[in-house]
Amino acid sequence: MSETAFNDLRTRLAEIADIGKAMSLLSWDESVMMPPGGAKLRAEQMATLSRISHEKFTAPEIGRLLDEARPWAEQHEYDSLEASLVRVVTRDWEKARRVPAELRAARTRASSLGYAIWVEARKNNDFKMFLDPLRENLDLTKRYVECFDAADEPYDILLDDYERDMKTAEVRRIFDYLKENQAPLVKSLARSPEHPEHDFAVDAQKTFELEVVRKFGFDDYAWRLDPTVHPFASGTGVSDIRITTRYFSDHLGGLFGTMHEFGHGLYERQIEASLERTPLARGVSLGMHESQSRMWENFVGRSLPFWRHFFPRAKELFGKNFDGYDVERWYGEVNTVEPSLIRVEADEATYNLHIILRFELEQELIADAFPLEQLPEEWNRRMHEYLGIEVPNDTLGVLQDVHWSSGSFGYFSTYALGNLISAQIWERLSADLPDVDASIEAGDFAPLRDWLREHLHRHGRKFTPSETLERVVGTPTIDPAPYVRYLEAKLSAL
Amino acid sequence: MSETAFNDLRTRLAEIADIGKAMSLLSWDESVMMPPGGAKLRAEQMATLSRISHEKFTAPEIGRLLDEARPWAEQHEYDSLEASLVRVVTRDWEKARRVPAELRAARTRASSLGYAIWVEARKNNDFKMFLDPLRENLDLTKRYVECFDAADEPYDILLDDYERDMKTAEVRRIFDYLKENQAPLVKSLARSPEHPEHDFAVDAQKTFELEVVRKFGFDDYAWRLDPTVHPFASGTGVSDIRITTRYFSDHLGGLFGTMHEFGHGLYERQIEASLERTPLARGVSLGMHESQSRMWENFVGRSLPFWRHFFPRAKELFGKNFDGYDVERWYGEVNTVEPSLIRVEADEATYNLHIILRFELEQELIADAFPLEQLPEEWNRRMHEYLGIEVPNDTLGVLQDVHWSSGSFGYFSTYALGNLISAQIWERLSADLPDVDASIEAGDFAPLRDWLREHLHRHGRKFTPSETLERVVGTPTIDPAPYVRYLEAKLSAL
Repeated sequence: MSETAFNDLRTRLAEIADIGKAMSLLSWDESVMMPPGGAKLRAEQMATLSRISHEKFTAPEIGRLLDEARPWAEQHEYDSLEASLVRVVTRDWEKARRVPAELRAARTRASSLGYAIWVEARKNNDFKMFLDPLRENLDLTKRYVECFDAADEPYDILLDDYERDMKTAEVRRIFDYLKENQAPLVKSLARSPEHPEHDFAVDAQKTFELEVVRKFGFDDYAWRLDPTVHPFASGTGVSDIRITTRYFSDHLGGLFGTMHEFGHGLYERQIEASLERTPLARGVSLGMHESQSRMWENFVGRSLPFWRHFFPRAKELFGKNFDGYDVERWYGEVNTVEPSLIRVEADEATYNLHIILRFELEQELIADAFPLEQLPEEWNRRMHEYLGIEVPNDTLGVLQDVHWSSGSFGYFSTYALGNLISAQIWERLSADLPDVDASIEAGDFAPLRDWLREHLHRHGRKFTPSETLERVVGTPTIDPAPYVRYLEAKLSAL
Repeated sequence: MSETAFNDLRTRLAEIADIGKAMSLLSWDESVMMPPGGAKLRAEQMATLSRISHEKFTAPEIGRLLDEARPWAEQHEYDSLEASLVRVVTRDWEKARRVPAELRAARTRASSLGYAIWVEARKNNDFKMFLDPLRENLDLTKRYVECFDAADEPYDILLDDYERDMKTAEVRRIFDYLKENQAPLVKSLARSPEHPEHDFAVDAQKTFELEVVRKFGFDDYAWRLDPTVHPFASGTGVSDIRITTRYFSDHLGGLFGTMHEFGHGLYERQIEASLERTPLARGVSLGMHESQSRMWENFVGRSLPFWRHFFPRAKELFGKNFDGYDVERWYGEVNTVEPSLIRVEADEATYNLHIILRFELEQELIADAFPLEQLPEEWNRRMHEYLGIEVPNDTLGVLQDVHWSSGSFGYFSTYALGNLISAQIWERLSADLPDVDASIEAGDFAPLRDWLREHLHRHGRKFTPSETLERVVGTPTIDPAPYVRYLEAKLSAL
């Protein structure tokens, strides 16, 4: 009874999805609400739920049900929930089964230990302190790679965790294009930036960004917005979406962060409700997710139509900060291009270069291309080569990012891929919606939101990333040209 | 290897404790933070974690490990974690195993369905609407009773869920004493109350109650205080305690509610940290828990020494509300005795009478002593008999409480028992701490807090409720006399 097997499978997957959402809440709460005294026990609670979820998912019974359900599910259309669920979960299950519980546990431990030491090392600008946990995380990552069939390159295995089916060679091809085309553009079009002094009242920022995201589609029925140290998007279901933000007084970076997280949130919010409680009810890959956050942050939030709509209100709220400003001057200021040390603060023109550097270093780390002690030098050399700047210390250099402390090798590339995808999507949606600029200028974001739901969001994880991309833009391949065209047009107009 | 079995058992119980705390967070979040869109899925998440936890706990393996660990554990002192854990968990496990999964699930469903209908019935003052779910809950409760060996009275089984080992006959004896001694006291000492008009600004209330609980022992390391509709105390561990409150503008009921929840929170906060991640890391019974909330609300919060300390600050914050007031007048006002319709709004002198009424009705419901349709009449008759007041409609009468809608028969008694225990403990601690009034008047709550930790809180659930009571007050028996003495002294002095 193949249908019975499918229903049984679905019930088991629903249970696992519930545990996943509970973990998502534990984690949101830890960053946003939890008193510090809860930290030690929270780690145990997360570890327990993670272990239960993994045990339930990797059980042989899941494999048996998949085998039994497959013939029946495959009689359904490719796009159906039935066929998609069995197709996607088969792949997930086969991957999850490869990793012994012992290695999984060791990676979790090393990650949490590594994180704590990284915090100290970064605070004290002491790379040596970070050497041991970095080596431990690297060694475990290599052991992880060995759990799988040999790939074209070992790094393929790591990429696959964040961007299914993506190959190192493919990313290299894309990044080489960027090195050739984006890097010179930055050099030729970067203006020597103004740095006006600002003092944006936090209360006014809160008012303004809520007004912005409410126009975007945020509402009190299905969303929350809270302050935190490191902004992120999370939630417990398609109608419980939680975004977080932070506030600076000397710039409006917090606002752009909020728009960024809104983009992540909207992707999850617009997933077809019928996928709820299945592993298909989330964004298809980190790259595709980042395309959505980047789109709302940059293609919308740093656009002239956006500011034509919102600038009058911003002037009202932020008063003398905008004395002597018209919308064009402010638009120029929020699009300043300037090579800088810190990835998360980089502008949209230089951001990808930070990623290319990390992508190359990660492959060398996995290949033991140089002694680990030498990593800061390697980092600094490339910062000079790609961005033309000197790194004054490791805190502002190799120690700036959390990812390696927790063994997340392969993750960084998805940030740049997301940027590129966002431009591909924007070209396509602009063709479908020739009035999109006028809508934005009128403060009407419904056409944009609806287009994204129809072409991308509703699918969740039913297809592979490239199948999904093909449905959205007509080609399965990530193409860096639209992003470079976009930058070129924007920067040369400024 | 009996010690190995114990360690294995402990690991399994720790996992179950983690799931329990995750559920506690899901539930806190649902009441305090969750956007309404999350409700439907949250119910699924709770049901899944509850089912997993129950399956893990009732597994035969737990029984086997208990049997294996017992000889080794019993070689430890009675007070030790080892002996206590095996002793308490054996009892828990045997009880949990009695109830078939099917009945458990039916009760959960009936409870959540009954709740939804009760909300409507109460809103529409329509008891008939509530009849079916009430009958369903009652029938399932009777089936639940049948899962256990015959007790002296069937109601004993229900009481035992909330107050282990408590017998109906014992509660009856206690309540008969109250009917004889507390009821006449209320009649003779109740004054005809003033009802002055107040308008307490909510911001000032928030400031004031935070100042109060900070003096009590609330801090930002281990506590949160948030607004909600129905106040409660919760948390995810001994150093993550969450209390909630609400605000009214015409009285300071919210403040007393906050002190009440602080009492619950402090009990959990002061449990010995070594009990964390075991089933012993919580208050021993609902009655004992309520003794702690009632103590901080009434013995502390409605005392003259308390207001001698805080009244000047209250005058500062609440301005003209206290024109013409001295501390004695305000003390009189917060100790007004007046029979009223609603249990949760009842004063400390009439509260127990509301409970006695429910205790008697519950036994009759279980015994089918009258047709269910007649319940409102039975309710109203007793309200007249015990409190001398007429019930104008069922919303203000039999439909006021949530408990029966979710099948929680046997719960109410613990509120009154808590009141009585609080007076027993207060007599004892006043003897141990002759300066307690002076400390309170000086705003120093450390001696009180420390005494409670040492004699009560730290034990958690290591002993039975009566063993615990004996350690605190020297007798294992709940004695209603101290509470009546306390009321008599307080009311006659007013």
